[in-house]
Amino acid sequence: MKRYISELIGTMVLVLFGCGSAAIAGSMLGTVGIALAFGLSIVAMAYVIGDISGCHINPAVSIGMWIDGRLETKDLVMYIVFQCIGAIIGIGLLAIIINSAPVLGGYEATGLGQNGFGSASSVGLNVFGAIIVEIILTFVFVFTVLGVTKKAENGAVAGIVIGLTLAFVHIMGIPLTGTSVNPARSIAPALFLGGQALEQVWVFILAPIIGAIIAGTLFKGLTSEDE
Amino acid sequence: MKRYISELIGTMVLVLFGCGSAAIAGSMLGTVGIALAFGLSIVAMAYVIGDISGCHINPAVSIGMWIDGRLETKDLVMYIVFQCIGAIIGIGLLAIIINSAPVLGGYEATGLGQNGFGSASSVGLNVFGAIIVEIILTFVFVFTVLGVTKKAENGAVAGIVIGLTLAFVHIMGIPLTGTSVNPARSIAPALFLGGQALEQVWVFILAPIIGAIIAGTLFKGLTSEDE
Amino acid sequence: MKRYISELIGTMVLVLFGCGSAAIAGSMLGTVGIALAFGLSIVAMAYVIGDISGCHINPAVSIGMWIDGRLETKDLVMYIVFQCIGAIIGIGLLAIIINSAPVLGGYEATGLGQNGFGSASSVGLNVFGAIIVEIILTFVFVFTVLGVTKKAENGAVAGIVIGLTLAFVHIMGIPLTGTSVNPARSIAPALFLGGQALEQVWVFILAPIIGAIIAGTLFKGLTSEDE
Amino acid sequence: MKRYISELIGTMVLVLFGCGSAAIAGSMLGTVGIALAFGLSIVAMAYVIGDISGCHINPAVSIGMWIDGRLETKDLVMYIVFQCIGAIIGIGLLAIIINSAPVLGGYEATGLGQNGFGSASSVGLNVFGAIIVEIILTFVFVFTVLGVTKKAENGAVAGIVIGLTLAFVHIMGIPLTGTSVNPARSIAPALFLGGQALEQVWVFILAPIIGAIIAGTLFKGLTSEDE
Repeated sequence: MKRYISELIGTMVLVLFGCGSAAIAGSMLGTVGIALAFGLSIVAMAYVIGDISGCHINPAVSIGMWIDGRLETKDLVMYIVFQCIGAIIGIGLLAIIINSAPVLGGYEATGLGQNGFGSASSVGLNVFGAIIVEIILTFVFVFTVLGVTKKAENGAVAGIVIGLTLAFVHIMGIPLTGTSVNPARSIAPALFLGGQALEQVWVFILAPIIGAIIAGTLFKGLTSEDE
Repeated sequence: MKRYISELIGTMVLVLFGCGSAAIAGSMLGTVGIALAFGLSIVAMAYVIGDISGCHINPAVSIGMWIDGRLETKDLVMYIVFQCIGAIIGIGLLAIIINSAPVLGGYEATGLGQNGFGSASSVGLNVFGAIIVEIILTFVFVFTVLGVTKKAENGAVAGIVIGLTLAFVHIMGIPLTGTSVNPARSIAPALFLGGQALEQVWVFILAPIIGAIIAGTLFKGLTSEDE
Repeated sequence: MKRYISELIGTMVLVLFGCGSAAIAGSMLGTVGIALAFGLSIVAMAYVIGDISGCHINPAVSIGMWIDGRLETKDLVMYIVFQCIGAIIGIGLLAIIINSAPVLGGYEATGLGQNGFGSASSVGLNVFGAIIVEIILTFVFVFTVLGVTKKAENGAVAGIVIGLTLAFVHIMGIPLTGTSVNPARSIAPALFLGGQALEQVWVFILAPIIGAIIAGTLFKGLTSEDE
Repeated sequence: MKRYISELIGTMVLVLFGCGSAAIAGSMLGTVGIALAFGLSIVAMAYVIGDISGCHINPAVSIGMWIDGRLETKDLVMYIVFQCIGAIIGIGLLAIIINSAPVLGGYEATGLGQNGFGSASSVGLNVFGAIIVEIILTFVFVFTVLGVTKKAENGAVAGIVIGLTLAFVHIMGIPLTGTSVNPARSIAPALFLGGQALEQVWVFILAPIIGAIIAGTLFKGLTSEDE
């Protein structure tokens, strides 16, 4: 149970701080600042809950770990459930904070850091482009997580590497889709906002799952028997 | 005594550089730059005084350590006293520097990096929101400090992780309250400025203490007996 | 074969994310943001393919390694071939993404992160300056890669150091030439764009090779027999 | 001799990239970007020449090391001489690059990243303030260098910590004096520019030396016999 609670806390922090930075101060922070907020949430959480649950805090990472045989099927399901609950609590806290700051005009007005495509993308990326982008971003992120956590001697730096990689996929992806690479992170604001956010959320569930499957499969192939 | 002197020097550097960056060049640096100034002060100090005093340089961190049984009650009191003295010296040096630069218009005009809510918050966050935000930010920061310093093999990277986490809670918190998470860092400028800063400072003493107590208690629970 | 496939994947990610950040969101990211996109691509890839192929993902690095006797001649040729194929696939994916975002006006309009001099340089750097700059930038980058990977105890941090160094040479070089230091990274967009990009690409093949040869030779001299 | 050549190369890279970023693209990079250029030059160089010469690349660091008994007097003198030669070569290369980019209007027009006070400070800091600031900045920087390099197990991360600390003192100091903390880095542009830069350079020789002496003496006291 401690492992599931840890995933809940970690995902709550990721979503509250990541989506919160975008929603509260996106224009002050710029793309790099928002990318750092998402990335550093992993740096922080990895060194507390990493030894307890592995600090996946993302269903796509849990799927990659499951494919590589490092997570049991029962735990995969429980991790995803607790990650989604954590994300919803994170967005709930964010909504309370935003509604305590009159200048922000209510949480609906801020968009809650929701992902999107079409008119919800800074560059008008269409649905086909959004699917391709999220598959690629998630592939790179999950591929790196699988690699850096495989080797024991990376232990002390793994959290920093994963955090920098999450920042990295946000730098490229924020102007395109806002970067999901994490279904839990997309579902929570969509549930609070409804409307277009909820209609588009299937892309940010489906494409990260596909990206995670490709990453897990390719990683297994490259590392199986050494050439 | 060397441990107390180390806490004094470390807190002096944190407050001089962190508050100094906000006061002198906030508009040039932006939120990310100020966040880095606070965060990197820990990176710098951790590798010098970390082995002497643990480099808490923050009463909230010392309270978390005390709850987790890693600091004696007598040292808790002395650490907090020396941290506050260090913060006051840091703000004193900052006031001298600012008053040597006529363009800045005197240290009162710069605000000395003081925390605030209501009209003193960029987004008009109310007192209730400020308390919630500071509890959450301090919880995340102290929770991470407790986690990363618990494991011996994190030794070499712990200072970097803690510094990045302090930057992280500033990225989210600067637009809201200016981010305290550290009563010593808030008391010192309030004493120099008086007025609204001094009237509001109780929030930035109380909320970080509550956040630290939650972090210490939860951390103890999660790490006590392994499941 | 796994080593060559790894170089292909790594170079594809480097070029897609690095050139992609410049092409899609250069003005939102600024010089530091683009520099981080290039640098963090190495951080991500080094911890996955580093143990398989060494994660050169750059012909200049492979040449430096070959001079220092750490790569066989046959592998040098194969690495360069697969790096170039990876770069071309990366730019191909980038073109598909850009063409899915009508606001960007087609991939030709974005410049695909191509390097350049003369009218293609932000500061109008002439061809002589561009050759000098690329020799110096590549020298510094390859010199650092050779140094940090020589010592076994740097293993866990080497990927972070190399990534930060690639960001570093971009901070200085983006306003001058856009920073190549990597022939594969320059050839791929030039092939897609033709015109001036293709006419100028010889500088970004020749100068990085010269810089790599200087770095390899000097490094060998400094580390050969200890004084 | 290899040690001296290494100091020359390292200081050349530091000055070329640090001052170069400020001179060529200061307005594009902003304070944080310039701070990163200086800081990352240490990250890059530390992992190549660190094992050869210690990578001081700064007379103030060499003075601190000498006070702590880690550098012989003869080497102190030779290190400083070769650091100054390296800095002059770095500025010479920078002048050639700048003069190859007509848009920049010649190297004199760019200021070559020179330090200054009074009318040469962004905030009009007077000479007294400049001396105080440079003493404090150098104290913090040299104090951290002495600390992080004292412990063998910090070996792999020391270069990253020192680089981040150099970035840190630049974030605070760029608006004040441009941040010297390194006499060699200030002397070289002053020699090329003459005029006010040369008249003011004594501050950026004297104050860093005082800061280094305080850091070395205090560090020795805090670490001598453990309490």
